[in-house]
Amino acid sequence: MIRIAVDAMGGDFAPVEIIKGAVLASNELPVGLTLVGDRPTLEKELSRYGKKGEISIVHASEVIGNDESPVQAVKQKKNASINVAVSLVKKKEVGAVVSAGNTGALMAAGLFGLGRIPGVERPAIAAIFPTPSGPILLLDMGANVDCKPKNLVQFAEMGSLYAEHVMHIDKPRVGLLNIGEEKEKGNELAVSSWPLLKETKINFVGNVESKEILSHKVDVVVCDGFVGNLILKFGESISDLIVSLLKKELTKNFVTKFAAFLLLPALAGIKKSVDYDEAGGAPMLGINGVVFKAHGRARAKAFKNAIRAAHEAVREDLVGCISKMEAA
Amino acid sequence: MIRIAVDAMGGDFAPVEIIKGAVLASNELPVGLTLVGDRPTLEKELSRYGKKGEISIVHASEVIGNDESPVQAVKQKKNASINVAVSLVKKKEVGAVVSAGNTGALMAAGLFGLGRIPGVERPAIAAIFPTPSGPILLLDMGANVDCKPKNLVQFAEMGSLYAEHVMHIDKPRVGLLNIGEEKEKGNELAVSSWPLLKETKINFVGNVESKEILSHKVDVVVCDGFVGNLILKFGESISDLIVSLLKKELTKNFVTKFAAFLLLPALAGIKKSVDYDEAGGAPMLGINGVVFKAHGRARAKAFKNAIRAAHEAVREDLVGCISKMEAA
Repeated sequence: MIRIAVDAMGGDFAPVEIIKGAVLASNELPVGLTLVGDRPTLEKELSRYGKKGEISIVHASEVIGNDESPVQAVKQKKNASINVAVSLVKKKEVGAVVSAGNTGALMAAGLFGLGRIPGVERPAIAAIFPTPSGPILLLDMGANVDCKPKNLVQFAEMGSLYAEHVMHIDKPRVGLLNIGEEKEKGNELAVSSWPLLKETKINFVGNVESKEILSHKVDVVVCDGFVGNLILKFGESISDLIVSLLKKELTKNFVTKFAAFLLLPALAGIKKSVDYDEAGGAPMLGINGVVFKAHGRARAKAFKNAIRAAHEAVREDLVGCISKMEAA
Repeated sequence: MIRIAVDAMGGDFAPVEIIKGAVLASNELPVGLTLVGDRPTLEKELSRYGKKGEISIVHASEVIGNDESPVQAVKQKKNASINVAVSLVKKKEVGAVVSAGNTGALMAAGLFGLGRIPGVERPAIAAIFPTPSGPILLLDMGANVDCKPKNLVQFAEMGSLYAEHVMHIDKPRVGLLNIGEEKEKGNELAVSSWPLLKETKINFVGNVESKEILSHKVDVVVCDGFVGNLILKFGESISDLIVSLLKKELTKNFVTKFAAFLLLPALAGIKKSVDYDEAGGAPMLGINGVVFKAHGRARAKAFKNAIRAAHEAVREDLVGCISKMEAA
């Protein structure tokens, strides 16, 4: 049975929603979970659930907060839940780690503890983006703010492998995020990356414009981490804004409240189309071990989906696939 | 009286909506308009309106399409409506030009015909972004895909002047688009630009994250044209997607249609909050003349608002303000 370490102390709703998500996952999946964090807290929280699968606890006395400097915190707080969880992967006691905590700290802990897959120059964070016709993968989402063409090529290859093996998309279409369709378009990085991407064995379909992301023109969108992070967070902020405007307008008076009631199923349908919770976690690709970042705002369902994706990545030996990438 | 040249042949809804917008503007503003395009077509279209202000026509025998290569088209089609309209600015027959046509062609026509304002290294396209608490300015929106820190500084200065003089914002807050708050964050360009921006006389408030764009943390957002174009078009695509999802769900059956009817005022309020039509045109800052790009999808109201902004830019001598920038 595959076992996964869960950083129970990371994220805005830790430990309550993290543990709830872990219990959900353990009931739905053939997976063993190791919760990492303050043992008394976790035992108390876990005791609230009756039926649960194979869940154990490993104590960690420290926590890295979201505002801490990642590298410094990971180096200084040896007993932080993120560090302890990653060390379980290193010791092969678990096959993967999932955390909703400090993204930079998780990346640093993964790199210090597990290293890079040989051949991979720069690991990347891939985000799952919801679209009405299903999720797509975008990378890099912020691990690498300045990239060389070679980096984008490796992101494309790793993203393609993830889409194929974990998202089970056949011959995933990979696109280069750009401001136009033609190969001459874009900044220096994009123009130099295009021909290199064309030479790879992946299904590179050319440039994809930002307006085509949500129309699912491709399954994997590749860009540098500066652009990716800006796009990801801008998208979230627009969704949040529209939801809050709708809530405000729909609860304004009796008529709008009544109308909103009639529309509940319709609105739920829309929400599901663009729901980040459905998407699950963001894999950190290129690290020599399966490391998943769940959204800082992840509640139980989102966290469960992150565990599900991590489980699939272990089952399909994603790290093995990526390590064979260079040779392909 | 200020006179403005209108490229009547550019944009998805030209000439019908362009001329309708021009008539609206001429009735609302103390402005003379010169429509540029195929004279018979424009005369016929214009004859449909009774009351209209000071509107004349200048014939132009050619049109530059949206799919044409901008520089080539501007050089080859001397009689294209964009070229003729810009030439009227050069001959000082009008104070500004407004076009909903090919963005690159308008920039090229402006640069070839009017040149740069002395001291400005690279002109930028600024977009007006709607937010629930009023419009903000983002630049560059695609004219410069690879930028140096010096370019971003000039964009910031020009954007600040535009916000002050045309949008009438007192001491506009200017932010550098970045992936974190701290000055050490971001890619090389952002990190090197920060201290230079801090040295300027504008009200530079530091970094602004993409999730803070719509919350109106600043009045002017500065970034390179690659990032700006991606953000702008991604934002539009999300709005479009949500509108189309809403339309689909709200017209599904009798109950949802009835509910939608009850919600019309509420939905109109939301639409207005994020309505690109309210925002008007995108000024091309740094060109030695007032050049405005209206959205390719601009209908009459949006085009009228672009004319209104161009009128204000001429009245406030925006070009004069920018030319004094370096000396400030």
